[in-house]
Amino acid sequence: MTVGDSLDFSHLFSDETKARKSSPLKSCIHLFQDPNIVFLGGGLPMSKYFPWDNLQVESPLPPFANGIGESPSGDAKDTCHVQVRKNEVTKAGDSKDIPLSRSLQYGHSKGQPEFLSFVREHTQLVHGMKYADWDILATTGNTGSWESTLRIFCNKGDTILAEQYTFSSSIYAAEAQGVNVFPVPLDDHGLIPERLESILDNWNPETRKPKLLYTIPTGQNPTGSSLSDDRKVEIYRIAQKHDLLILEDEPYYFLQMDAYQKDPSQRKATEFASHDEFVKSLAKSFISLDTEGRVIRMDSFSKVLGPGTRLGWIVASAKILKAYLQLHEMTIQNPSGFSQSIVAGTLNRWGQGGFLDWLIGMRREYNEKRDVAIDALYEYIPESPAFHINPPIAGMFFTLNIDASSHPEFATKYQSKPELVEQAIYEKVVASGVLVVPGAWFKALGDTQPPQPTSSKQELDPNGVIFRGTYAAVPLDKLREGIKRFGLALKEEFQL
Amino acid sequence: MTVGDSLDFSHLFSDETKARKSSPLKSCIHLFQDPNIVFLGGGLPMSKYFPWDNLQVESPLPPFANGIGESPSGDAKDTCHVQVRKNEVTKAGDSKDIPLSRSLQYGHSKGQPEFLSFVREHTQLVHGMKYADWDILATTGNTGSWESTLRIFCNKGDTILAEQYTFSSSIYAAEAQGVNVFPVPLDDHGLIPERLESILDNWNPETRKPKLLYTIPTGQNPTGSSLSDDRKVEIYRIAQKHDLLILEDEPYYFLQMDAYQKDPSQRKATEFASHDEFVKSLAKSFISLDTEGRVIRMDSFSKVLGPGTRLGWIVASAKILKAYLQLHEMTIQNPSGFSQSIVAGTLNRWGQGGFLDWLIGMRREYNEKRDVAIDALYEYIPESPAFHINPPIAGMFFTLNIDASSHPEFATKYQSKPELVEQAIYEKVVASGVLVVPGAWFKALGDTQPPQPTSSKQELDPNGVIFRGTYAAVPLDKLREGIKRFGLALKEEFQL
Repeated sequence: MTVGDSLDFSHLFSDETKARKSSPLKSCIHLFQDPNIVFLGGGLPMSKYFPWDNLQVESPLPPFANGIGESPSGDAKDTCHVQVRKNEVTKAGDSKDIPLSRSLQYGHSKGQPEFLSFVREHTQLVHGMKYADWDILATTGNTGSWESTLRIFCNKGDTILAEQYTFSSSIYAAEAQGVNVFPVPLDDHGLIPERLESILDNWNPETRKPKLLYTIPTGQNPTGSSLSDDRKVEIYRIAQKHDLLILEDEPYYFLQMDAYQKDPSQRKATEFASHDEFVKSLAKSFISLDTEGRVIRMDSFSKVLGPGTRLGWIVASAKILKAYLQLHEMTIQNPSGFSQSIVAGTLNRWGQGGFLDWLIGMRREYNEKRDVAIDALYEYIPESPAFHINPPIAGMFFTLNIDASSHPEFATKYQSKPELVEQAIYEKVVASGVLVVPGAWFKALGDTQPPQPTSSKQELDPNGVIFRGTYAAVPLDKLREGIKRFGLALKEEFQL
Repeated sequence: MTVGDSLDFSHLFSDETKARKSSPLKSCIHLFQDPNIVFLGGGLPMSKYFPWDNLQVESPLPPFANGIGESPSGDAKDTCHVQVRKNEVTKAGDSKDIPLSRSLQYGHSKGQPEFLSFVREHTQLVHGMKYADWDILATTGNTGSWESTLRIFCNKGDTILAEQYTFSSSIYAAEAQGVNVFPVPLDDHGLIPERLESILDNWNPETRKPKLLYTIPTGQNPTGSSLSDDRKVEIYRIAQKHDLLILEDEPYYFLQMDAYQKDPSQRKATEFASHDEFVKSLAKSFISLDTEGRVIRMDSFSKVLGPGTRLGWIVASAKILKAYLQLHEMTIQNPSGFSQSIVAGTLNRWGQGGFLDWLIGMRREYNEKRDVAIDALYEYIPESPAFHINPPIAGMFFTLNIDASSHPEFATKYQSKPELVEQAIYEKVVASGVLVVPGAWFKALGDTQPPQPTSSKQELDPNGVIFRGTYAAVPLDKLREGIKRFGLALKEEFQL
């Protein structure tokens, strides 16, 4: 199959992006490697003055027979020894390393080639890209990538769309820039395409139309819901119809699990016969559907290797990534050279299959954590129509939906205001020794001025409040204890 | 002496900063360490799933007897072994390490304590801070810190002040944001205080007054000039008079040198009898004069350890750094954990004195590079009033000032336009196999609308053009060869 190039979406760029000039210094830095030119052009310190050499680190060795939580013993049988020298060495097996003399130097704003090529191959393997000029840009993780996205596409006064509950930092980053975050309702299966379409079909032409949909499709933060593959196809069609870009923020993508079985005897952890089978089991991504370069995907190692790597990547069309690169040249320059040398050194030793083994191991761990959390919720949350549990099939979060109007003092003490019930519950649970966080922290509230005709009809459940918990952060015994405390607090609060 | 707290400069914040809310998730992350709380609050992966342990790296050992360019042999006599474990170890001497379980986790947006405490002590030692509530924030280097500074203080349409020639990326970052960069003339001794004062005294009240002076005081980029201590005192006074913040961008601060002696027999490299003597030899910084928290200092390891560490810091008042921290929480989160573990692991083993030894060694290297460059300039640049050499006393750059009107075809082929002469020279030198870069790339041109009464009187030398070269990037033999080619190109071009 011959695939075409992406469309041009530069009409959606912000004024800032349109005004941004590349530094001419960046345009001549490649002459540093030109043997015919004496490079007196830029302030590049000589690598002989970088004080580090012989960087080494140990990781477990694929296929991670003892699980991904096992520390390497140092023995060759279970330990992957990563060693990165300052200068290039040609010894077999080291050829995919990024020498410190290069990773610690200026230059590769796109990311180091050895890192990019691994991620590129991984992306093709998992998403099977459907247009020709897609590319990869190294980032310092999705928080920064999102801020960059806002700068690249949005002007002050613009409106973007997002799930009704979404990651609070993403909302606040937009709001600080004067960008309005307009909520799209979601349910247990994620964002509701019909609602999205109705919002856009009926958009008030007096207000600027949204250019961008921000979505966390897999293990959504905070609701824990995952967008079904069918809905993604629908949403992509709506995006085409309304000239909308889709920004998929996918830090939890590889934390996909089996469907939760309430009865433990029915549980049977999926074993994958091959890497291929594992890849086929994964949810379809928006980028895998994309034939036009309309989707921008933000990926990160924060949830699968470690947040402090501050290393991630964006998948998008080369045309769009050029704007990110120009911005990066004035912000991060590039992710840490140590991070790139260590992560690429590790992944290139593990290989694509080894990385998939790691991700399969990660899936297994989170599957168990999820089961323990949901078991505990069913055990400790009082049985009542006031409480709804939606067992997640991906991610780090579970959510308890609470009908605030079921509170015995809803109409009296709380003046029929669900947000006051929510706040009271929050204070109660923290006083009970557990931290779960209220939905209010995640609410996109940004209606436009004048308001949209759809916005008053949005609330699926006007008295619904949610609490987000995570099964990621603590060991299983503490997880159970925390949910027990949560349940007891609710029991007291609701006088059950 | 009792010192007071900084003044409040929040009236100078941008609309964006005033609108920025901190994520409530960040406000509760400290509960992760609270033994009485089960933390189900945030998506922190457990550190047992971070695949790395036993990170090791070698550096030379202070006092760097064989110079800072010497590779460590691996022997204890000349090699500093840095070893960072995943989990805290209590073994003596390792206590100042940042364990990977922490540096690779979410949490410390300000920077890791072991890194900050080293930098804090270094800052006090070098700058002798003069107000009480100063603080340090870890950054990914000065490029990003400058972008953040613009976001924090400037609205679209604002004007800032900068040296007439300044780092092009800094200009372009401002311009993309719709911030105007107004030039202040500089000479061989840096920014001219009288000109700065006259610009501000006569500022057209119809245009928004500048809030910020952006300056590279030491080894200025691109001119190589260094601002004298006396001028700094004057500029600080003017800043107080006009409610101006001073942003000192100081990546080259520790590349200070002896004054250039044309006669090699007169050269005597300064030997410092003590660390204290070295510190006393350094130029006064703006931050060392600051009693009010009016100065923001951007420091970086890019030029003294390696650009790819992507690790630097800002020194400013706690009140101002709070705004940077809130922005960082939505952009970089924090510098790479690997970078922080490795850099802090190295510096805490070297100690403050060891780091000063490194910087003294760096000074020695650059002193020699500068001498070779300036010797070659005097040797190869044709002797003519058309050319002016200003031997730098700091930094990585030398500049050749050229009187374009001396070009034999100035009035004919180049229509008396210096910029056309400049472009012709640039093309000539690149064709001759050397890259030096034209001043046009560094020119702050941003007059206001309506224009300032001072702006037409600014040009010190309307036919002057400059070329910037660096002695940093190549070995000494290539450096001489490059300057030779530069000289020959000029000789031909000017028919000398």
